[in-house]
Amino acid sequence: MIAEKMVGFVENNSAIRMMFEEGKRLSKLYGAENVYDFSLGNPNVPAPCAVDNAIKDILDSEDSSYVHGYMSNAGYEDVRRTIADSLNRRFGTDFTDRNLIMTVGAAGGLNVIFRALLNPGDEVITFAPYFLEYRAYVGNFDGVLVEVPPNIPSFLPNLKELEKRITPRTKCVLINNPNNPTGVVYPENIIRELTAIIERKSFEFNTDIYLISDEPYRELVYDGVNVPYLTKYYANTVVGYSFSKSLSLPGERIGYIAVPNEMKDFDTVVSALTIANRILGYVNAPSLIQRAVARAIDSKTDVGYYDRNRKLLYSTLKNLGFDIVKPEGAFYLFVKSPVEDEKIFCDMAKEENIIMVPGSSFACPGYVRLAYCVSYETIERSIPAWNRLMEKLKKGNLNLK
Amino acid sequence: MIAEKMVGFVENNSAIRMMFEEGKRLSKLYGAENVYDFSLGNPNVPAPCAVDNAIKDILDSEDSSYVHGYMSNAGYEDVRRTIADSLNRRFGTDFTDRNLIMTVGAAGGLNVIFRALLNPGDEVITFAPYFLEYRAYVGNFDGVLVEVPPNIPSFLPNLKELEKRITPRTKCVLINNPNNPTGVVYPENIIRELTAIIERKSFEFNTDIYLISDEPYRELVYDGVNVPYLTKYYANTVVGYSFSKSLSLPGERIGYIAVPNEMKDFDTVVSALTIANRILGYVNAPSLIQRAVARAIDSKTDVGYYDRNRKLLYSTLKNLGFDIVKPEGAFYLFVKSPVEDEKIFCDMAKEENIIMVPGSSFACPGYVRLAYCVSYETIERSIPAWNRLMEKLKKGNLNLK
Repeated sequence: MIAEKMVGFVENNSAIRMMFEEGKRLSKLYGAENVYDFSLGNPNVPAPCAVDNAIKDILDSEDSSYVHGYMSNAGYEDVRRTIADSLNRRFGTDFTDRNLIMTVGAAGGLNVIFRALLNPGDEVITFAPYFLEYRAYVGNFDGVLVEVPPNIPSFLPNLKELEKRITPRTKCVLINNPNNPTGVVYPENIIRELTAIIERKSFEFNTDIYLISDEPYRELVYDGVNVPYLTKYYANTVVGYSFSKSLSLPGERIGYIAVPNEMKDFDTVVSALTIANRILGYVNAPSLIQRAVARAIDSKTDVGYYDRNRKLLYSTLKNLGFDIVKPEGAFYLFVKSPVEDEKIFCDMAKEENIIMVPGSSFACPGYVRLAYCVSYETIERSIPAWNRLMEKLKKGNLNLK
Repeated sequence: MIAEKMVGFVENNSAIRMMFEEGKRLSKLYGAENVYDFSLGNPNVPAPCAVDNAIKDILDSEDSSYVHGYMSNAGYEDVRRTIADSLNRRFGTDFTDRNLIMTVGAAGGLNVIFRALLNPGDEVITFAPYFLEYRAYVGNFDGVLVEVPPNIPSFLPNLKELEKRITPRTKCVLINNPNNPTGVVYPENIIRELTAIIERKSFEFNTDIYLISDEPYRELVYDGVNVPYLTKYYANTVVGYSFSKSLSLPGERIGYIAVPNEMKDFDTVVSALTIANRILGYVNAPSLIQRAVARAIDSKTDVGYYDRNRKLLYSTLKNLGFDIVKPEGAFYLFVKSPVEDEKIFCDMAKEENIIMVPGSSFACPGYVRLAYCVSYETIERSIPAWNRLMEKLKKGNLNLK
């Protein structure tokens, strides 16, 4: 009875979500404090007080019909202006409200982007490992997701393989920086090479290729690392942003799309995005929380908290001999599985109440993802479990590397 | 550069939204108090105090990570249970949390429903006049919207014409009760006839046909009129609801889908809907406002306010000789244009600073829609303008009826 496209999804629901449900099941069985659930990117650092205070202030001081009412499909103009000013200050852009469209999170933003841009059969290239939902988002509009294989061990984008995969059907190149699931941050020189390749190939094929930058983790970086702002490197860039991680509001579904003035056919593209936001049924990003993030625009989640977690989990696993790519952003560790089939490794870890997500859920088998947006104490308490797991791995007659 | 499907939309943006922008333009020119903008269904009665109080209480008493965090893609279980209990009390249903999926308003809900159910080429039948966005929602997933012509002058569904249009490709019949734009409420005998036809035809063709009930106006009815709850009349019913009008929260994007236990393949359909909610990028309905509507579940907007408006505007226009279908629900009047081309009538009205939406925006030319979710004073102040408009219509050598 359901759509044919949905059958596969129903039979094979999101592995990340299944691990999350598994974690909840084990917590009931053994007590939450004895389960080490590294499955979900659900920030454990609460939203800054400024957000809740802003919400209360808005309710007390602004007109109710305005705060809870419809506004332009692109969002409140003053909210967009506030965000534009903040981006201009931090990244030297020249945005006004007209460059921004408020969206239902970054996932909503990506769907709006693909609805606005893709014709059936258009190709969207992305770099493995990647958030597997990309495939569904592109598929919603009959686009084709084209994978560039993982660049092991750096996990920077494999630019040679990118160049080979750009065809006259390529409509978008989609990158996620800082990266989920690796925690890697792509530096400026890589961005310059990447945009040069796209320029060259779109000139060769006489096509327009969009660079889509999915950046919910922009604010979550460590050791002073710089995350290049892509509109400054490539004109036909569309940025998808979310406040889910930077303000710990993932359930609120609030983010935006940014389009630079240099975009070819700027007005048409912005119109198409705004209308896509309407006709996909979002209509507009949730109103009260739009106004709240604008008031709290200078607030930021406690990145130091995640940094402590990162250091503890990274050093713990490194000392045990695990092979991990150095994480400079987001809140994930991407760990090489000591067993060839990483799903077996995940099952072994689950016996120690450690929940993690297999890399095959990110088109990169042989690795696992650990989300360290958990309490510091969870990581501390998990250390004996990691030790036991390593003992088992050593004892077992497994195909260890 | 944009998707071919979007070109028409960009060239021919929503007439309702254009009228809304026109109203804003005239307000700047003549002062808001001298413009009578009946274009947009944006409730002017503020949300009940209980909503804002609930939001503040939640922020003060519940855990921030819980309130702003991810939850199951179908929404918080306790929120769904509260809504299910309320529906059970009022309509004698037997819902639990498993029957409900929280959505980004009713527009989000309809997109989720069509994403979950439609294969390309599947037909969705609806009754003119209808909210023109339906065409876009169905088209998002390559379905085909099939119109049943308007049943003038009652504007009840034309059931004979429905029966003729049901084919083996019919996947859904979509109704909107109380109706936008007519304000008509379909009574129980019509619902019984309608569901009997669908039963008969789906038996004849050996197909499954879903009845989709779009009911954001369920709570907005007058004179004690009853709005039948459709799951009780037809097993394969999916209800799309929104709190936009009942709690005056249109900007917040909060609603739900309800699926009865009698639904064929219940588990599969609910899974498909829940996954569609995730992969369309909604992920989940906004979290804080989910919790707030549950706390305010027994609150209701001031329907008496709209009723006063309804009576004043209806009697004013009736007395001037306009032909109007009696409105029993929602907050719209559907008025027969005294000029054959209702767009000319809209332009004449605009000269008097009266803004209304042509019926062709609802697949029903020759009529206009007036949204009376405005202040009572706006209607009072508009009376001389209506008088002048009627004078002009009488004087002009127009094709009056």
